[in-house]
Amino acid sequence: MARWQPGARERLVVAAVDLFTEQGYDATTVAQIAERAGVTKSTFFRHFSDKRELLVAGQDTLSTLLAEGIAEAPASASPLEAVAAGLERASSAMGPTNRELGPRIQAAVAASTELQERDALKSVGLASAMTTALLDRGVPATTAHLAGELGVLAFKQGYARWSDGDRDEADGLAHHALAALEDLRAATASLH
Amino acid sequence: MARWQPGARERLVVAAVDLFTEQGYDATTVAQIAERAGVTKSTFFRHFSDKRELLVAGQDTLSTLLAEGIAEAPASASPLEAVAAGLERASSAMGPTNRELGPRIQAAVAASTELQERDALKSVGLASAMTTALLDRGVPATTAHLAGELGVLAFKQGYARWSDGDRDEADGLAHHALAALEDLRAATASLH
Repeated sequence: MARWQPGARERLVVAAVDLFTEQGYDATTVAQIAERAGVTKSTFFRHFSDKRELLVAGQDTLSTLLAEGIAEAPASASPLEAVAAGLERASSAMGPTNRELGPRIQAAVAASTELQERDALKSVGLASAMTTALLDRGVPATTAHLAGELGVLAFKQGYARWSDGDRDEADGLAHHALAALEDLRAATASLH
Repeated sequence: MARWQPGARERLVVAAVDLFTEQGYDATTVAQIAERAGVTKSTFFRHFSDKRELLVAGQDTLSTLLAEGIAEAPASASPLEAVAAGLERASSAMGPTNRELGPRIQAAVAASTELQERDALKSVGLASAMTTALLDRGVPATTAHLAGELGVLAFKQGYARWSDGDRDEADGLAHHALAALEDLRAATASLH
């Protein structure tokens, strides 16, 4: 967020999600989003390359946090324990606005093939960030790929439970993401 | 493939991949693809909605075959055994043209964010088809999601090994996909 425009980035995301919900993604223009957020179009383009990027805002930050958490896990941590550390680190960046916007963003994505494609590539990017961080720890390739995929599934499932659930519930995103990861780990025993 | 234009669909895919390789995805037009394939633009649009769809041609067929293989696996089959049956069924639809085009398609995808997005959504679709077929067998939700994701990873890894490998090698795609699935299954033991 640039110092000369505090809050503009978050206001743009909220305005865009509101407009996507009200009138659909295709019908919404950058000019409308900027106006709703009370900023100029050039401010919009300082934050995002196009309206599609709004809905995956924060992907780079998330990837960095996931990778950092994995890199800084104790040397004795198993691959999934390292992934859990990454999920905890990334969860710490998600606040009440993310929680509140979650279901509305999901609704906008569900209504637009273009956004589904972008969202799918975001998941690929997050998995890749985790897999690379695990490889750097010396985790064998197949295990690192598998653990990276489980990390993304856990983050998405945890995010859904957190943002769809009771808003008064005190448990943070990390709690839900780690619970989802544990569910996935337990499910590996019933595959074969 | 429509009876009145035998081979047109495959010729369009080959022409498109050639042009994407020669001059890039963005610079290639539908008119050029149709001309290279020796068909009219309207024939193109009878087969594909746009040039992007060319590179995910066959997604619906693959999804159907994966789901059928899973549905028809013996009742005693474990979730991963059912996935293996789906991979075998889907592999049977992939012939020498798919094998030969594989690396060139991957190169075109790697060079275009737009194609990466479409390719990522294709993977989501294939995983979803397998997960749904597993749920229909009574597999619990978390296990079904996990097995569907492993199925996609195995199919993609198997496809890469098959199409990147020695063309004189006799092993089919099914062999490589099932080997990749077994590698992933074995890796679940080293996650924790």
